[in-house]
Parts: sequence; C-alpha cells; structure tokens
Amino acid sequence: MQINISTSKNNQLVNITQDVQETVTKSDVSNGICFVHIAHTTAGITINENADPDVVRDILLSLDDIVKNLSGFRHYEGNSTAHVKSSLMGNSASIPIQNGKLQLGTWQGIYFCEFDGPRSRKAWVTCVEELNNQ
Amino acid sequence: MQINISTSKNNQLVNITQDVQETVTKSDVSNGICFVHIAHTTAGITINENADPDVVRDILLSLDDIVKNLSGFRHYEGNSTAHVKSSLMGNSASIPIQNGKLQLGTWQGIYFCEFDGPRSRKAWVTCVEELNNQ
Amino acid sequence: MQINISTSKNNQLVNITQDVQETVTKSDVSNGICFVHIAHTTAGITINENADPDVVRDILLSLDDIVKNLSGFRHYEGNSTAHVKSSLMGNSASIPIQNGKLQLGTWQGIYFCEFDGPRSRKAWVTCVEELNNQ
Repeated sequence: MQINISTSKNNQLVNITQDVQETVTKSDVSNGICFVHIAHTTAGITINENADPDVVRDILLSLDDIVKNLSGFRHYEGNSTAHVKSSLMGNSASIPIQNGKLQLGTWQGIYFCEFDGPRSRKAWVTCVEELNNQ
Repeated sequence: MQINISTSKNNQLVNITQDVQETVTKSDVSNGICFVHIAHTTAGITINENADPDVVRDILLSLDDIVKNLSGFRHYEGNSTAHVKSSLMGNSASIPIQNGKLQLGTWQGIYFCEFDGPRSRKAWVTCVEELNNQ
Repeated sequence: MQINISTSKNNQLVNITQDVQETVTKSDVSNGICFVHIAHTTAGITINENADPDVVRDILLSLDDIVKNLSGFRHYEGNSTAHVKSSLMGNSASIPIQNGKLQLGTWQGIYFCEFDGPRSRKAWVTCVEELNNQ
C-alpha cells in the first residue's frame, strides 16, 4: 500500500505514524512486521521522539552540522548533502505489529525525512504476518 | 518477545547477541528473519565487531566527535545528541535465521546502543519464517 | 542465497541491484520483502541514486569528512573509521517485492559499501512472502 506525503520545506521531518497505522489496519495483519520503504534518494525515514517538537528540529540542525556542503562535491544537481542525509537516516523502517497495532515505544513516532523539498513524496508499506505464533 | 537490558554508563554498547539467539530458539523459527526493535528514542542498535572491545569503544568516541552538542539545540531535556545518535544507528535490526541460528558474519555481534544511560531498557524480538523454502 | 562481491578499492560503492534481483527471481516470492544482510563489520549497504555516478562518489567523500581518523582510536587494526562507517550505513536492507520484482524508486539502486578493501565480500539474501495478500 502507498502513503503519499506532501512536504512544505527544504528540510522537514513529517510524523507519518497515523498513516502507517491505517495501512496496518487495512492489511488485516495481527502479529508480525510492518515495513515502510521510502521510494526516494533525497529523503529517508527515522523513528524518534513524538512529544517535544524541538527534538526533530534539533535532529535537522545536527544533520546540517554533520553533513557539510563540501567544495569537492561534483553531483551536477548540487544536492549531494540530501543524498548523504538519506543514506545516514536510511530509507526503510521495520516496526513490530501486535494485535493489529504498531508496537512502538511510548515516545516513538515514525518520521518521513525530507531533505530536498518541498516535494510530493511516497512511501510503500508492506505487512508480513508472524506465522509461528499461530 | 522482550529482552531487558540494564545499562551502567551514559554511553555504552552492550552485546545482546546471546539474548537475541535465545529468543530465536524459543520462537521455533528454522529459516527466516529475526527483527529486533529498540523501544526508545535515546538508544539504538548496531551490528559490529565482537572480537576486539576497542572497536565499540572507538565507535562511541567517533559518535561523540560526529554529533556535536550544538548551542542552537532547544530540546528542554538537554539530550539532543542522544536522539541524533539514535537516528544515526537506527532502532531496528534484521538478521537472517538459518537452521534456528542467527546467521551472522564471523566477527559480527549485535549491540544495544545506550546514549542516555544508565537506564533500564527493552528490545522487542519478532521472528518470521521464510515460507518459500518449505 | 549468497551474493559474492569483489571490491577493487579501499572505499567503494558497488551497485548490486541486478544480483539481488536475480536471487529474488530464484526465490519464487511474488509479493513480500527481500532482506539483504552484509556479513562484515567494515562494510555496509545503502540505497541511493543509480543515475549520476557522482552521487556515490560524493557520498564516499562526505563519509570521509564526517568520520575523522581520531588520534584517540585504540583498535589495533587501525581501521576504526571503516567500522564507524559500517554502523552509519547499516549492514542490512529490506526492499519490497511486487510481482517478483524489487519495488525500488525510479532513481534507487542497492549499493554494497566497501570501507576496508579491496576484499572478497559476501551478502546473504532472504525473501519472505507477504501472505496476507493471498
């Protein structure tokens, strides 16, 4: 199943936990794993704190500090830092499903990571049943 | 199944390979995938060398160098570097299972990454059978 | 199933998308997830742009800038930066399978990441069917 994400900033973390839960509900998987795959090379996915919005703000600030725009970069589109951030965050997440619900820690939210927006983006969700429990 | 981890330092890598293997054994999965999900936002998981203990020490040293405690951070708990390290390492791992055993490389161990300890932590393990082989 | 990779440089990203697709085809899985596990601690895996070869070149340049060879490193083999890069990129990838084909974004390729080559390396591929669709 596909989730569509519309980003409004160049660098942005968008909480997609609710969208992912809806695809889990539709999948009818009770116990297993939910995979989210981001179909882009200048975006990513991460799981981090959903309470204080300053956490995701600080993560973006830190990534800007970590990934310098080096004078030696050659990629003609000029967005190499976005590609590096994508590889650092990764473009897939796997989350346990228990009784039809995403099994996340108390403070965990699933975030789509935009590093070259604003753009229209998509994520693919696949749910797999854990058969050995049945 | 749940693994409980007790950390004793602020930043620490704890080898949990044996604990994960025990849950695989209990799951009765012969061939498939073992998923480990860390239920926290200031901790993570990584697979790295299990032989020379200086490797995990050097990884922690390097992460301290990479993730600076920026003056611009705003998260009121003051542990933004721990959240960033969590996203850099990731909070899930997927390891192949073959004949009921974790299929790891010779030098690979599974490490719980504590970035804001000491604390009591937990990881959830889910094992999925690879049905196409049966 | 195993993929063998022969690297020719110390730091190198090798496109293994075609090799992974071949194992998916052999697995007979129609819809599900393909897991790739790198069996080494100084190598990794990432998904990034397959069009302009300067992107993977810039990623390697950026990783060299991010992961400094610190004077405080103690690992006797002297390749701690390779271990850190391995943990930053991660050593497993999960990619959706649809109708027997890897479901990747238009610009996405799967790259084996060599950080301590040249060497002979291996990756393990496991395909799991998404049963709820059947």
